[in-house]
Amino acid sequence: MASTAVTTEHIQSEFRNVQDHICAFLNDADGVPFREDAWDYGKGSGGGRTRVWEHAKLLEKGGVNFSAIQGASLPPAAATEFKLAPGTPFLATGVSLVLHPWNPYVPTIHMNIRYFEAGDLWWFGGGIDVTPYYPVREEVVAYHRRLKQVCDESGEDYAAHKKNCDEYFFLKHRDETRGIGGTFFDHLKSDKAKNLAYCVNLGRAFPDLYRPFIEAHRNDKHTDAEREFQLYRRGRYVEFNLVYDRGTLFGLQSQGRTESILMSLPATAHWRYDWRPGPGTREAQLTDEYLKPRDWLSLG
Amino acid sequence: MASTAVTTEHIQSEFRNVQDHICAFLNDADGVPFREDAWDYGKGSGGGRTRVWEHAKLLEKGGVNFSAIQGASLPPAAATEFKLAPGTPFLATGVSLVLHPWNPYVPTIHMNIRYFEAGDLWWFGGGIDVTPYYPVREEVVAYHRRLKQVCDESGEDYAAHKKNCDEYFFLKHRDETRGIGGTFFDHLKSDKAKNLAYCVNLGRAFPDLYRPFIEAHRNDKHTDAEREFQLYRRGRYVEFNLVYDRGTLFGLQSQGRTESILMSLPATAHWRYDWRPGPGTREAQLTDEYLKPRDWLSLG
Repeated sequence: MASTAVTTEHIQSEFRNVQDHICAFLNDADGVPFREDAWDYGKGSGGGRTRVWEHAKLLEKGGVNFSAIQGASLPPAAATEFKLAPGTPFLATGVSLVLHPWNPYVPTIHMNIRYFEAGDLWWFGGGIDVTPYYPVREEVVAYHRRLKQVCDESGEDYAAHKKNCDEYFFLKHRDETRGIGGTFFDHLKSDKAKNLAYCVNLGRAFPDLYRPFIEAHRNDKHTDAEREFQLYRRGRYVEFNLVYDRGTLFGLQSQGRTESILMSLPATAHWRYDWRPGPGTREAQLTDEYLKPRDWLSLG
Repeated sequence: MASTAVTTEHIQSEFRNVQDHICAFLNDADGVPFREDAWDYGKGSGGGRTRVWEHAKLLEKGGVNFSAIQGASLPPAAATEFKLAPGTPFLATGVSLVLHPWNPYVPTIHMNIRYFEAGDLWWFGGGIDVTPYYPVREEVVAYHRRLKQVCDESGEDYAAHKKNCDEYFFLKHRDETRGIGGTFFDHLKSDKAKNLAYCVNLGRAFPDLYRPFIEAHRNDKHTDAEREFQLYRRGRYVEFNLVYDRGTLFGLQSQGRTESILMSLPATAHWRYDWRPGPGTREAQLTDEYLKPRDWLSLG
C-alpha cells in the first residue's frame, strides 16, 4: 500500500466493508439473515449500523456492529488517561462483534477493530478472542496458527499481541482467562496505512478463523447438562464485559448507544452459588487446561 | 441504649443476630431451609457465613450473608477515597441479602447493613431497595410508609435516605432506577450506639417490609411472557451490580470472597437486543411510572 494520506473517510469505508464481508459469511453460515438497525449518535454526530441475529439457526444471539461517531467532548476518565484537555472532541470508528451460538460445542467469539482520534492523537486497536465451553485442543492450536499467519502477513508481532490478549481478557476475581485468547492490540500508531491494513486483514480473516469451529460442531448432539454448563459459563462472559471491558465502560461513560454496546451480552446467563464441576470432568478440564495463558503453538 | 462503649464484637454479634432473625423468617416463608456455607477470608483474618436458597419453593435464588473480615491493607481506590495511607489495615462487618423469587409478581429485594473501620475512622452504612416487575401502587406506598416508621423510630431522616437511595440505585446508561427505591445511607458516624441501633432496627424490620409482597403474590398465576419479562429485567439487575454497585466493586477489588459477593446475581438473566414493551402495557408502565424517583408517600 502506498504511503499516501489515509483519510478518516477511507478508514470508515474499509471498516464498513469488513462488516459486510463478515455479515455475508454469517448470513450464509446461519441461514437466517441479520436484522439491521441504523442509528444516529444522539450525543454528537455520526452513528452506526447494528446487525443482529436472535434465536436464529446457528446463533442464539449475535451482533456485528459498525459505528463512526464524533463526540463533542471526551469522557473525563479517557481525557485523563490520554493526557488530553477535558472537553477535547473525539472521533471513534470501528467494527465489533460477539457471537453466541446455540450449540455448547461451538465457542463464543469476539472480534473488534477500531480507530480513534482526539486532539493530535490517533491510533488503531482491536483483537479477537474465543471462548469455548468444550474445547478441542487441535482446534485451539489450529486457530492460533491461523491467527499467527494473519499477524505475519501484516508484519505484526503475534507473540506480543497474544500476550496482550491473555492479560486483557482475564477475570481477576475468578483467576481465569475469558477463553483461549487470540490477539489484542491498542495504541497502534506506527504507520496509518500499515496499521489499517492489519486491522482489515484481521477482519477479512474472520470467516477463516471461526468457520472451522462451526463446521466441526454445529450439529453435535449435546445433553441438557452441557447446555446448562454453557449458560453457566456465559455468566462469566457477562462478568467480564461489565466489570472489566474497557470498550464497554468507555461506551457507557461516553453516553454511547447502550443497546449497541451491550449487544455483546448473551441471550441467557445463569449463576449458581459456588458451583464447581466434578474433578476430571470435561467441565473441570475447561478451567484447568484452557482458561490460562498457554503457548498454544508449542502444544500442537 | 446507654452510651457505653460499643465494641466491635458487640456490633458483630448484633449483626449475626439480624442474620438469624431474617433467615428464620425466610426459612418459614420459603418452606425450604437455607444451605449454610461458613468461610474464612483468605487475604486476612475473619470470614463469614453465607446462607443460600437455590431452586427452593418461594425463592429461585437468594442469599443472606454475614461477614466480619480484617484486611491487612485497604485497596488503593478505597485508601484514596477515604484519605488514608495506602496499606492501612481495615475491618468490615455486615449483613447483606438479595432475594430473587420465582414468581414475577413478587419483587426482588435487597438489604444490607454494614460497619467499617480503618485508621481512626469508623462508620455505618446500609440500605434496602425493592425491584418489582409488576408493581402495585398501594403496596409500594405501604412499603415506603413502613420504611419511614423505621427511620422515625431510630431518629433518622427518611426523606434524605430515600433520596440517597434513588440516586444510588440508578442505571445511568438506562436512565432508570433499579426499582422503587427505599433507603440508602453511608458514612453514618454521629453516635456509635444510635447508628448501630438504626442498622439493627432496619434488619429486624425486614420481615415486615417484605412479607406483604410475598403474601399478596406468591400464589399469583402468571404467563410465560410475564416470566420472560422478569428474566429480561433481571438483566438490568446484573448490569447495576456489576457496573455500579460500590459494595460489589470494593469486594472484588479487596479480593473478597467472589462467591459471596456475586451471590446477589440472579439464577437466570436474559438480554434481547433493543427490546421495548408495547405502549400502555404493564411492562411499559413499570419503566414509565415506577423506575424513577417519586415521592411515594404523597401518592398514597
